[in-house]
Amino acid sequence: MGDTVLLAHGSGGLLARELLDDLFLRYLGDDELHALEDAAVLSPIDGRLALTTDSYVVQPLFFPGGDIGKLAVCGTVNDLAMRGAVPLYLTAGFILEEGLPMADLERVVASMAATAREADVRIVAGDTKVVGRGAADRLFINTAGVGIVPPGIHISARNARPGDQILVSGAVGDHGLAIMTQRHGLRFESPIQSDCAPLSGLVQAMLAVCPGVHVLRDATRGGLAAVLNEIAGQSRVGITVHEEAIVVHEAVSAACELLGLDPLYAANEGKLVAIVPPDAASTLLEVMRAHPLGAEATIIGEVQAAHPGAVVLRTAFGTQRLLDMPAGELLPRIC
Amino acid sequence: MGDTVLLAHGSGGLLARELLDDLFLRYLGDDELHALEDAAVLSPIDGRLALTTDSYVVQPLFFPGGDIGKLAVCGTVNDLAMRGAVPLYLTAGFILEEGLPMADLERVVASMAATAREADVRIVAGDTKVVGRGAADRLFINTAGVGIVPPGIHISARNARPGDQILVSGAVGDHGLAIMTQRHGLRFESPIQSDCAPLSGLVQAMLAVCPGVHVLRDATRGGLAAVLNEIAGQSRVGITVHEEAIVVHEAVSAACELLGLDPLYAANEGKLVAIVPPDAASTLLEVMRAHPLGAEATIIGEVQAAHPGAVVLRTAFGTQRLLDMPAGELLPRIC
Repeated sequence: MGDTVLLAHGSGGLLARELLDDLFLRYLGDDELHALEDAAVLSPIDGRLALTTDSYVVQPLFFPGGDIGKLAVCGTVNDLAMRGAVPLYLTAGFILEEGLPMADLERVVASMAATAREADVRIVAGDTKVVGRGAADRLFINTAGVGIVPPGIHISARNARPGDQILVSGAVGDHGLAIMTQRHGLRFESPIQSDCAPLSGLVQAMLAVCPGVHVLRDATRGGLAAVLNEIAGQSRVGITVHEEAIVVHEAVSAACELLGLDPLYAANEGKLVAIVPPDAASTLLEVMRAHPLGAEATIIGEVQAAHPGAVVLRTAFGTQRLLDMPAGELLPRIC
Repeated sequence: MGDTVLLAHGSGGLLARELLDDLFLRYLGDDELHALEDAAVLSPIDGRLALTTDSYVVQPLFFPGGDIGKLAVCGTVNDLAMRGAVPLYLTAGFILEEGLPMADLERVVASMAATAREADVRIVAGDTKVVGRGAADRLFINTAGVGIVPPGIHISARNARPGDQILVSGAVGDHGLAIMTQRHGLRFESPIQSDCAPLSGLVQAMLAVCPGVHVLRDATRGGLAAVLNEIAGQSRVGITVHEEAIVVHEAVSAACELLGLDPLYAANEGKLVAIVPPDAASTLLEVMRAHPLGAEATIIGEVQAAHPGAVVLRTAFGTQRLLDMPAGELLPRIC
């Protein structure tokens, strides 16, 4: 297979076949992949299909708490979970730069396989393209995800209602700051770990006790602030959140001060915002806290009829400020 | 929106929203896309799901007969069609290089929209990432496709049987040579046009008269030779094809001689190989020829029990040679 990726590994010829057998099929050993057909044909399904896609261009490829492969599985699984879907299948498309160390690719593919097992999804279709040196930055991955939405589940960013309570599943900003501190070469006693994790298990636990959840969103690009603004806009409601209820890890706070960043705008890859009817909030908080990925969950605010489209942050000092949609250049290549 | 793509167009902030509204949603105006949810939730479906993905890195982005956007829809639709699936939904993931002219992106997205309409598929989920100058070569697209396989259809590269007839839907090598002549700056009186086309309509016409088709494959990377070798290997059969029955356009022949290429190894993006029970061959040939995308269809050979795994080419002079699996560096970035 060689030590580095060559153009011929993407050619459809013998070397491409070797890469497929010795690396992709070895780690992602799904029967459908092994069949080497143009498309996977899967068992009959019956229900509402959920479908999503994301490309991953994160830089660096490896970071504390994850890597581009783990991210490519978690990000897409989470997008399905945010509609209440049970994730079933992923596709994976790789764009490799000629000269990429084969060991890096192997580490990424092994990580995808492990994360897919953790999230209980099957990677059933794939594709590899190789481009010349300088035509891509090492490795890009696209995943698309297919899931099924169980009957009775109707979750949408349009469904927030005045009176609803807003929950967040844990501390915010970990992923963004893990990437940024790594990129800037900042060293802490213990490096900030990305929160990168598949949230489908947490969501299924939540929906089991409260199928009437109104909104779920994972707080990725643009962080908590962007997601709350999107929901306020799409549901045409006002949102108020309380700063002291939002958990930010101490190292993230410190790094944010150093880099001039706001943790409320920093990306997360394993945190969700849930907007729920008021009578379900305390039960859901309990269920979330009982799950390893929701141990630090809090109720951070509420939905109002007033100031539709706007998100207001109440500080610990009793003042309040508008939490705007992020503008201009955010952190690039964070996922 | 500006004249060129900026890093901030991929940030999840206001410019990203503008790009989404003013370009992607304007052309790809599907209700599910407009909903701007983490995942599309679609109507209930009932049946065997077909799922596939491909990334497109073709260079140049625009070529006679097509562009990367048309290719990104056709390639994935065709992979679904090759399992006998009716294509329903596509996802589209864009990786843009900072500085890409917005007019190029617009032309590509408009082309995707037109091709999706032609192929009768909906683009229901998408994603855009922007990377810095030099971190990608202008524009890469990934599409994943979802289809449903009708009852009674069982098409697989493993299903070729001794005695089966082999049909090809038209002339081979057009796409590969359209790209290569463009790349090498070769000028002909009329440039070679890529055959890039969605084959789902042709396949549905074929399956309507003969649901018992054994194998369908589109002859993309590695061309007709690679596909025949894959089928011979996966079905553990021998294959013999007759050179004089394989249609090659005159301009493609001429360009191949000039460039030292073999049209049987050159990529196609709108040609399929069908392997069918002998009693169905002539009916299928008629049906294919009656379809605009199969007008030049021919029966090119037959499947044998002898020499399993090998593909033999009988020349017009009565000699025969082994048509090997392509080795080494084929044409890179042909799709």
